[in-house]
Amino acid sequence: MKLMRVGEAGSEKPALLDADGKIRDLSGHVADIGGEAITPAGLAKIAAIDPKSLPEIAPGRIGPCVAGTGKFICIGLNYSDHAAETGATVPPEPIIFMKATSAIVGPNDDVIIPRGSEKTDWEVELGVVIGKTAKYVTEAEALDYVAGYCVSNDVSERAFQTERSGQWTKGKSCDTFGPIGPWLVTKDEIPEPQNLGMWLTVNGQKMQNGSSKTMVYGVAFLVSYLSQFMSLHAGDVISTGTPPGVGMGLKPPRYLKAGDVVELSIEGLGTQKQTFVADR
Amino acid sequence: MKLMRVGEAGSEKPALLDADGKIRDLSGHVADIGGEAITPAGLAKIAAIDPKSLPEIAPGRIGPCVAGTGKFICIGLNYSDHAAETGATVPPEPIIFMKATSAIVGPNDDVIIPRGSEKTDWEVELGVVIGKTAKYVTEAEALDYVAGYCVSNDVSERAFQTERSGQWTKGKSCDTFGPIGPWLVTKDEIPEPQNLGMWLTVNGQKMQNGSSKTMVYGVAFLVSYLSQFMSLHAGDVISTGTPPGVGMGLKPPRYLKAGDVVELSIEGLGTQKQTFVADR
Repeated sequence: MKLMRVGEAGSEKPALLDADGKIRDLSGHVADIGGEAITPAGLAKIAAIDPKSLPEIAPGRIGPCVAGTGKFICIGLNYSDHAAETGATVPPEPIIFMKATSAIVGPNDDVIIPRGSEKTDWEVELGVVIGKTAKYVTEAEALDYVAGYCVSNDVSERAFQTERSGQWTKGKSCDTFGPIGPWLVTKDEIPEPQNLGMWLTVNGQKMQNGSSKTMVYGVAFLVSYLSQFMSLHAGDVISTGTPPGVGMGLKPPRYLKAGDVVELSIEGLGTQKQTFVADR
Repeated sequence: MKLMRVGEAGSEKPALLDADGKIRDLSGHVADIGGEAITPAGLAKIAAIDPKSLPEIAPGRIGPCVAGTGKFICIGLNYSDHAAETGATVPPEPIIFMKATSAIVGPNDDVIIPRGSEKTDWEVELGVVIGKTAKYVTEAEALDYVAGYCVSNDVSERAFQTERSGQWTKGKSCDTFGPIGPWLVTKDEIPEPQNLGMWLTVNGQKMQNGSSKTMVYGVAFLVSYLSQFMSLHAGDVISTGTPPGVGMGLKPPRYLKAGDVVELSIEGLGTQKQTFVADR
């Protein structure tokens, strides 16, 4: 299933995209796409509904594909060729950091370049949405705890991230730096998460063109690994790192300016399109 | 006012501690201590209630002092003498990192030493609770955005934090590593947040004995600073760093074991007491 949230920010309705590309209103059945609704039992309940029985919603703004995200965990340097382009080596275990959940926006919302930013950069990433509480789970069982997948743009301000005193959070958490969606695609539609093509363009020019098959630490490993440190809960999102082609890795580096348009997509997960705008 | 949340985890009632030390039930007036209730308007509404008109609640478990925390932001190396004991220098601007909000527990709840941990450590810290959305605020106006203060124990696993590949989040976000409370003390009761004594004991032995007057970056500066990077929202918590005396800084280092009891307090903000237990 392709689950989504449609409407103005803060008042999105839960919905699904049917086989004909129509948006169907789920608000008669679930409160939102998140929490209970994306647990295995919740997803089974939605799967049992005949989409044609649901009211159609006219296309409009698409919100973040999941509500109530408690943690937005990101994995650093998780593609060997991306690590190389940044001058770093692949870490002996996953690097994890947090993006503020207040950064989350819809997939096509404007992204605001923060005041003082000169190095706002892009990162197409496979997002993993947790579907039930995971603690100390093994790699073999890890995917049982995954509800599905989404496109994530881990927008990053490189100067804030690396030149403004320790820890990356500062350059990762700016408002609007976390577009997720358009859909939460349930895992039954993505049987092989480690073989998904992904790309990103800036003003139509291809900048990233990779595949999740070159991920260093795969989805199942990451869910298991993170669960050794902390409980993962339904609605938590893991952004699993980016393939090569970010602005910071170009020679010379290239960063985003107001008016730039970024499009990004992952096979089977849909496409995002953001206009970058100056902060007022 | 001393606001608090009383009851079993997940079903706490909002309450206040009256001048006689009695716990008074606020659930007839506010949904919880968080969100709207801790905005300036929300706090004014609570302040207008005669505490004696509120039902008394028998003492029981105390929950985290604020509900619905979206971000739990911590400041690293923010006391010059603590920086020295860890072998680090004071950073040119604040170091910020995130603690998972899923780590938040009540002030006297057991703290679980994670599996594989050998370096679980303590950190008494002044917690700042945000009361309304702050973005690009100046230092002069920053305290207008603060609802109040609380005691915070920034429990830290030093090996996870520093020996397991980049970024501190891993050692800061374990379940139960974020006791906050017992009270959210509104800022009118704490006119000088930069002159509060604070201490922490392990099994009755004084380990930390400092004052917020030796903070490098004060509360107003931090709120203003953070708001340059991201919006702060009502219920967000900033844990402002710890004075000297953590286990990592001792020679030889000393870490917590199952059965250890940690007590910590900040002047005017109450006392926490945690028993550290092994994970099952």
